[in-house]
Amino acid sequence: MAKAPVLTPQAEDFPRWYQDLINKAELADNGPVRGTMVIRPYGYSLWERMQQEMDARIKKAGAQNAYFPMFIPQSYLTKEAEHVEGFAPELAVVTHGGGKELDEPVVVRPTSETIINEYFSKWVQSHRDLPLLINQWANVVRWELRPRVFLRTTEFLWQEGHTAHATYEDARAYASRIHTDVYGDFMTNVLGIDVVLGRKTARERFAGAINTLTLEGMMGDGKALQMGTSHELGQNFAKAFNTTYQLQGAEREYVWQTSWGVSTRMVGGLIMSHGDDSGLRVPPRLAAVQVVVLAIKGDDAVLAKVREIGAQLEAAGVRVVVDDRTDTPFGRRAVDWELKGVPLRIEVGPRDLENGTAMLVRRIAGGKEPVATDSLATLVPGILEEDQALLLRQSRERREARTVDVASIEEAVEAAATGWGRISWADLGPEGEAKLAEQGVSVRCIVAADGSVPATDDQDGNIAIVARAY
Amino acid sequence: MAKAPVLTPQAEDFPRWYQDLINKAELADNGPVRGTMVIRPYGYSLWERMQQEMDARIKKAGAQNAYFPMFIPQSYLTKEAEHVEGFAPELAVVTHGGGKELDEPVVVRPTSETIINEYFSKWVQSHRDLPLLINQWANVVRWELRPRVFLRTTEFLWQEGHTAHATYEDARAYASRIHTDVYGDFMTNVLGIDVVLGRKTARERFAGAINTLTLEGMMGDGKALQMGTSHELGQNFAKAFNTTYQLQGAEREYVWQTSWGVSTRMVGGLIMSHGDDSGLRVPPRLAAVQVVVLAIKGDDAVLAKVREIGAQLEAAGVRVVVDDRTDTPFGRRAVDWELKGVPLRIEVGPRDLENGTAMLVRRIAGGKEPVATDSLATLVPGILEEDQALLLRQSRERREARTVDVASIEEAVEAAATGWGRISWADLGPEGEAKLAEQGVSVRCIVAADGSVPATDDQDGNIAIVARAY
Repeated sequence: MAKAPVLTPQAEDFPRWYQDLINKAELADNGPVRGTMVIRPYGYSLWERMQQEMDARIKKAGAQNAYFPMFIPQSYLTKEAEHVEGFAPELAVVTHGGGKELDEPVVVRPTSETIINEYFSKWVQSHRDLPLLINQWANVVRWELRPRVFLRTTEFLWQEGHTAHATYEDARAYASRIHTDVYGDFMTNVLGIDVVLGRKTARERFAGAINTLTLEGMMGDGKALQMGTSHELGQNFAKAFNTTYQLQGAEREYVWQTSWGVSTRMVGGLIMSHGDDSGLRVPPRLAAVQVVVLAIKGDDAVLAKVREIGAQLEAAGVRVVVDDRTDTPFGRRAVDWELKGVPLRIEVGPRDLENGTAMLVRRIAGGKEPVATDSLATLVPGILEEDQALLLRQSRERREARTVDVASIEEAVEAAATGWGRISWADLGPEGEAKLAEQGVSVRCIVAADGSVPATDDQDGNIAIVARAY
Repeated sequence: MAKAPVLTPQAEDFPRWYQDLINKAELADNGPVRGTMVIRPYGYSLWERMQQEMDARIKKAGAQNAYFPMFIPQSYLTKEAEHVEGFAPELAVVTHGGGKELDEPVVVRPTSETIINEYFSKWVQSHRDLPLLINQWANVVRWELRPRVFLRTTEFLWQEGHTAHATYEDARAYASRIHTDVYGDFMTNVLGIDVVLGRKTARERFAGAINTLTLEGMMGDGKALQMGTSHELGQNFAKAFNTTYQLQGAEREYVWQTSWGVSTRMVGGLIMSHGDDSGLRVPPRLAAVQVVVLAIKGDDAVLAKVREIGAQLEAAGVRVVVDDRTDTPFGRRAVDWELKGVPLRIEVGPRDLENGTAMLVRRIAGGKEPVATDSLATLVPGILEEDQALLLRQSRERREARTVDVASIEEAVEAAATGWGRISWADLGPEGEAKLAEQGVSVRCIVAADGSVPATDDQDGNIAIVARAY
């Protein structure tokens, strides 16, 4: 008799598999206000590790953390015309505070370009104040009509970088640096997702930007997820907020700006990239728990051994948890760790003790084998790196296998049913893009013929990558 | 001719000195919505270090981080009667979202007991789910009529812990553990503030708690600041939200709960505890920048030397910054680092190079002397620990010098003009407390005769500490 699957199989219903996994692995719950979410401890540990890795890279890129108020006067939003048009439909508005109706309603930040520019315009005086490189870890609110946990939520957590530069070139170079050295490096080498780096079309740009750089990942069902964006804002916000610096003499020049962000949406991307029918698979470099050492039974000798192995692995620099909750059946605990996607399980029972071995169960590569316990501390770090590389390779292979070259709108729509299409951007153009949009397919990004990020949309040989997207 | 002071002297006008320091050291700005604040990078670096140190201690106490939505249905707040009475006047209310008026208005969390209990009531089933130990780093909103940066702001950042336990004793022990091992240890040994640990009177308790433990610090002007609190919630929220667990058999029992928090208010406490007329003094264990190495002039040899010293100190585990911005006058940079309270400055000019020395300037102990550059890496860590101890000693000495034993309401009010009064709680009682309150003096906490935290208000020999407070 076959066991009933713990999750709806991916092949049967991918969205339901996603929701099942989030429930069963205790990653998140729906919040009481429509579209909000409760991030449970295990889900939050994934975000916390993302924050740590990202924060180190952001600081290395020279940006400093700060914090701006989440309440923004409504009048700020209207200063940049495209920006307000883009965000107005999604705003949450506070009309009452301290028991009284407010004179001017305030909005809860959907993003912070406006309030940050209000302060940049005070802080920036001379070229010595530039570049000004600020990052903020915060919650933001965009009212969602079709919410989905982690992917589209009314409130989400993110980092938003905001910078001001003396020249167009400097701003452009910084937006690109964040795109590749911070986001690209993190997603590829920590998340193990083979993201494609490209530029957005004018249609898909951030409201108020002159250029948006994006990172697109292919999910397990072949759809695309925008994992992060880095924008060149030009002088749009600088003009709206009069953010200027003094040149030689008395003349003043508007600053050139960038903004860039990634959010808890990445947790959704992680799940849909690496998850399988048994649950999540967490890349070892990201995992808050890389190895769990399980006591199969509560014998004193077994308990002593799992604790000893735990201590040895910890000393070897491995993030390890010892599961000695032997009043809960072993099978239930094993399934739970599998659902949670902890890369390695080391299982120890009375019989293993006799043999001087433990069962090593590999969640990512699959399979299990007995291993001499005294070799674990030397073996495990190498296996974790192997599994990290394997996830990236699987992600790349899926993307390559499910991406096809196409030459017409019809072919593009067909490709998007199972994966991504690649089509000449010169042939497709904004009109073709509009036609695709009518069928729910979008241009995820434009890449150069050699796969690099093109400097302009109309560079020779530019390719549009088209797909359905979350 | 005396130099004009950079800050209003403390003795002249303490509140103005505080505001001057915050502006000049670039710690924070007022936000556009009344009562909100912008935390600037240097101010945020203090909070970030507080978070790191606190987070490690919270995790060591077994709590896990999670994240709950900031939007709470208004109906949740009303479920616990005292709680809603306490918070209703301070709420910010969202009435519109996504361009429409909401069916039920939502409040922005002033604290999260209600929404967290809604989920605890789903997650807790059996005694195996207990204790449930959750912490959250978040922003909260309490509409402030008399805002003051860091001390009382409409939006502030904090951590809030929320736990559920099987028994009264277990909850009580955990609230106490957070009070002493997490908050007390952090404030004493990292912030260098000689806080007094005690219990709040019924009048000063958290809205919905059966007992509130507090940590009170004496500021530079002799007033008190509540630096953090840990509450026993009894079964109040459990009953309001039906948070129960199964006993042997089918019977169910309400859980016993705690909640506890510290906020960006601690940054204000740090400033007012250790600041002087030249600016802030940051305790070395907290400081994001423990040492700054300054090039007095831009000679190649000087620049090479400051970078070399910087690298040596970094290798010795010191958090160091090299200031080689020699296009800004040295005097201006020196004053700026002094304002920011970086514990040690190492200043290097051409003449120092000849002597093989650098000028070591001690911000905390005061004074400066030339030191052989090749001994810096060995000397500095010890000096930093000395200065850390000195700050705590100065904090303790101030508290002892400005605390007096009093025996009547009149004497208590007089003591509170310059510091703290200690009065028998049996003699004062709730009626005396009410009389003190009419004159702006409050009971900050009750301590036992031996200085420990008393188990009850009416324990023999209990002392009330009375003061004016921020």
